[in-house]
Amino acid sequence: MKAYQALTERFQRLARLDHLSAIAGWDMQTMMPSGGSDARGEALAELSVMHHEILVQASTAELIAQAQHEALDSVQQANLHEISRHYNDAALLPTELVEAQALAGSRCERAWRQQRIENDWQGFQRNLVPVVELARQEAQLRAQALGVSPYDGLLNLYEPGMTSQRLDTLFGELIGWLPDLLQQVVAKQPSRTALPTQRIYPISQQKALAESVMQLLDFDFEHGRLDISAHPFCGGVSTDVRITTRYDTTEFLSALMGVIHETGHARYEQNLPKQWSGQPIGLARSTAIHESQSLFLEMQLGRSKAFLQRLHPLICQHLTAATDLSLDDLVKQVQHVSPGLIRVDADEVSYPAHVILRYEIERSLINGEVEVGDIPDLWNDTMQRYLGLSTAGDYRNGCMQDIHWTDGSFGYFPTYTLGAMYAAQLFNSLQQQLPSIDEAITLGDLKPIFDWLNHAIWRQGSRYSVDALMQQATGETLNPKWFRQHLERRYLGR
Amino acid sequence: MKAYQALTERFQRLARLDHLSAIAGWDMQTMMPSGGSDARGEALAELSVMHHEILVQASTAELIAQAQHEALDSVQQANLHEISRHYNDAALLPTELVEAQALAGSRCERAWRQQRIENDWQGFQRNLVPVVELARQEAQLRAQALGVSPYDGLLNLYEPGMTSQRLDTLFGELIGWLPDLLQQVVAKQPSRTALPTQRIYPISQQKALAESVMQLLDFDFEHGRLDISAHPFCGGVSTDVRITTRYDTTEFLSALMGVIHETGHARYEQNLPKQWSGQPIGLARSTAIHESQSLFLEMQLGRSKAFLQRLHPLICQHLTAATDLSLDDLVKQVQHVSPGLIRVDADEVSYPAHVILRYEIERSLINGEVEVGDIPDLWNDTMQRYLGLSTAGDYRNGCMQDIHWTDGSFGYFPTYTLGAMYAAQLFNSLQQQLPSIDEAITLGDLKPIFDWLNHAIWRQGSRYSVDALMQQATGETLNPKWFRQHLERRYLGR
Repeated sequence: MKAYQALTERFQRLARLDHLSAIAGWDMQTMMPSGGSDARGEALAELSVMHHEILVQASTAELIAQAQHEALDSVQQANLHEISRHYNDAALLPTELVEAQALAGSRCERAWRQQRIENDWQGFQRNLVPVVELARQEAQLRAQALGVSPYDGLLNLYEPGMTSQRLDTLFGELIGWLPDLLQQVVAKQPSRTALPTQRIYPISQQKALAESVMQLLDFDFEHGRLDISAHPFCGGVSTDVRITTRYDTTEFLSALMGVIHETGHARYEQNLPKQWSGQPIGLARSTAIHESQSLFLEMQLGRSKAFLQRLHPLICQHLTAATDLSLDDLVKQVQHVSPGLIRVDADEVSYPAHVILRYEIERSLINGEVEVGDIPDLWNDTMQRYLGLSTAGDYRNGCMQDIHWTDGSFGYFPTYTLGAMYAAQLFNSLQQQLPSIDEAITLGDLKPIFDWLNHAIWRQGSRYSVDALMQQATGETLNPKWFRQHLERRYLGR
Repeated sequence: MKAYQALTERFQRLARLDHLSAIAGWDMQTMMPSGGSDARGEALAELSVMHHEILVQASTAELIAQAQHEALDSVQQANLHEISRHYNDAALLPTELVEAQALAGSRCERAWRQQRIENDWQGFQRNLVPVVELARQEAQLRAQALGVSPYDGLLNLYEPGMTSQRLDTLFGELIGWLPDLLQQVVAKQPSRTALPTQRIYPISQQKALAESVMQLLDFDFEHGRLDISAHPFCGGVSTDVRITTRYDTTEFLSALMGVIHETGHARYEQNLPKQWSGQPIGLARSTAIHESQSLFLEMQLGRSKAFLQRLHPLICQHLTAATDLSLDDLVKQVQHVSPGLIRVDADEVSYPAHVILRYEIERSLINGEVEVGDIPDLWNDTMQRYLGLSTAGDYRNGCMQDIHWTDGSFGYFPTYTLGAMYAAQLFNSLQQQLPSIDEAITLGDLKPIFDWLNHAIWRQGSRYSVDALMQQATGETLNPKWFRQHLERRYLGR
């Protein structure tokens, strides 16, 4: 076990560098004054280079090869599998490609912030072409190594084991019934009383509300905190999880539901297996499983009537301008469905349409079947088909709305909807196993839920593949019917 | 210049690691929840090990030797001198010694926090003995390399070029007149009206006051911020300086004067030469020069009548419970002299007595002339002679009050009083060169002061030795008469 031991020490060191990178990254988004950004960027880049140097040194590959002949128990074998995956993911790319990508990506992203405002597709397209070109090169290298299609080479970075063939089936089925369901929901849903405008919800009150909801959701404040950033995220390290939100003093539900979402990510991180901390096997399983935990809390639990009954008095207690909000109004607001152009503002029924649209375009783009110039028309056509909305000429609210492609993060989008499907399947299993769970939720007794999630997902870290994890937790691998059932029950009362 | 160039790149990398260490260290004191400390400690220790590995690798010594034969301009030569000093300081100690020190120091410090409360000298002594023993070994190694006495080997880490022979003269002269001066001041000073107790100064108001004073002192909020920590400090990096304070809602002057002190450190850091950033020559000159900048702002400027005239309306404006504070009362409070047992609470007249007492004991301790068991009696005898106070049996408020010795930081104490003397000498020079400066201060026009400090100290970085720096700034090397003159003028009206 000498080689395996040496590998664990190397990955322990890397985890400590990741720790510093996570905290300095969090600081950059939450605390750092603007003048600190250049030096911070350089310091983080240096750390990332050192991380890469340590990870891909020749001896790592040798140690992996040796360790594969050592007598390892099943946990060690699983860890070695993850070590090997991390090594291969990092070692596959030539340094020049990584550097060219960083350059093209940061140039495209920075310009995009202004170009988006100006609806400047031509300008954006010029920067996006090299980003796509380099992403195709990366995809090619990863695809060769894994023996998969180019797009799947990128997809595997976020969702190990997932294939576009399987996605085509999953998403194809989903998009087969979704537009119709959406129409029915919109036609059927009760008319929503607009929440009173011109009311002020002070940030201090919203923060106290958010923290009391985090407490209800058993967020561990000894190992984490809540702050403010322009773009909400869950960062930090598992012993010290930093979630963020942004407050709008005229509307409180976005921040509140956002905090519940990030608390889902946070609870996963806070409950990762401590006995494997510092090792790849101790990390969260995948991007989609991570998203499933945030959506479990936000969508499955957080927007359920049972939970809203418990949330309602907390809102009235903390927000002096919301004391007259009725439970019925709260449910209508939180469950309101309204197809729109913007993904991040989408309700949970329309959301998959946004994701599948992006998935189809990026898959074809990376596989070389379409070019950057084709994107606006593809986008418009698909929006028309899926949501009945046009984005012709409106790049800003169309294909230029997301940050993901600007720095070359192709393969990420599918994880949002995979996460939503995993969450529905997990919640369904939980309900099967604990039939009285709705009552418990209404009373605020969430411990059985968290115990179940902890056992099913959190404490497993990366020991099992995504499929094995879901199989153990729910008795089957990903089955999209539970997501459909969830939407039909909640929004059509079936 | 190939070797020199390679060295600058290596030190640039080290500076970036220092950046991450500074921010993660700041976070630890200000933001981190308690449960995050173990993993943070490990991550910071890992970074420190990597820093050490990079710095002391054999090729660093080779590159330094080669660079010494390259054609370098005077700035490059000065930088190479600093590079060489940093390398030698780090490379001198065997790893086992550093590790043993870290272990003994952290054990002693942690136990001290409780032992101090319990006045447990016997327990503390047991832990301090190995700390002193290891410090003596370190001192011996440094002394041999520099050709100086053991204590001077440690002193040089904080104040390069300073010797105990010179300190003996400087401090000997100072302590010759200080006890007498102190008696005169105490006898002569106007009786102080106690500030009204049972008033509440809300933290939000104190923070707004602190930030307005920082603004007056030209703190650059684009490159820094103010937060709260248990022990006030100035941290972060020069592009992003993080100062802290702690607020007492029943008393506002400690926090306010503390913020002015830390702002002095901060302005030095914020104005270090940017063209040399990332290189040792771009760093602050020494610990005592750093302290001179904080004491320049806090003691020379901050407690002067001229400045208090400008500060007074800000206090009345921000603190609703202090609107009736008269300027006369403010001056009396801020300039009040009262010898006491605790160094950190001492006024600027008694402070040097605390420092010289510690200097004398630690010098003898490190040079092997006294033992740990002798400290309490030495402390008590010296306190009697210098301040007329007894600490017999009171270890808690005597030799166990400071954190410095607990982790082996011998050689640091003298820099407090050196800083006070440098500050007085600098302020005197400024007054000579800008005779109307008191008027400008009263009006809040501090720009001439900061321009002068910037030119004299800040923008010089570590280009010159401390003596050369002071010579250029004031026309002479350290001369203690200016500190005496300052105290006599302010406190005896001479």
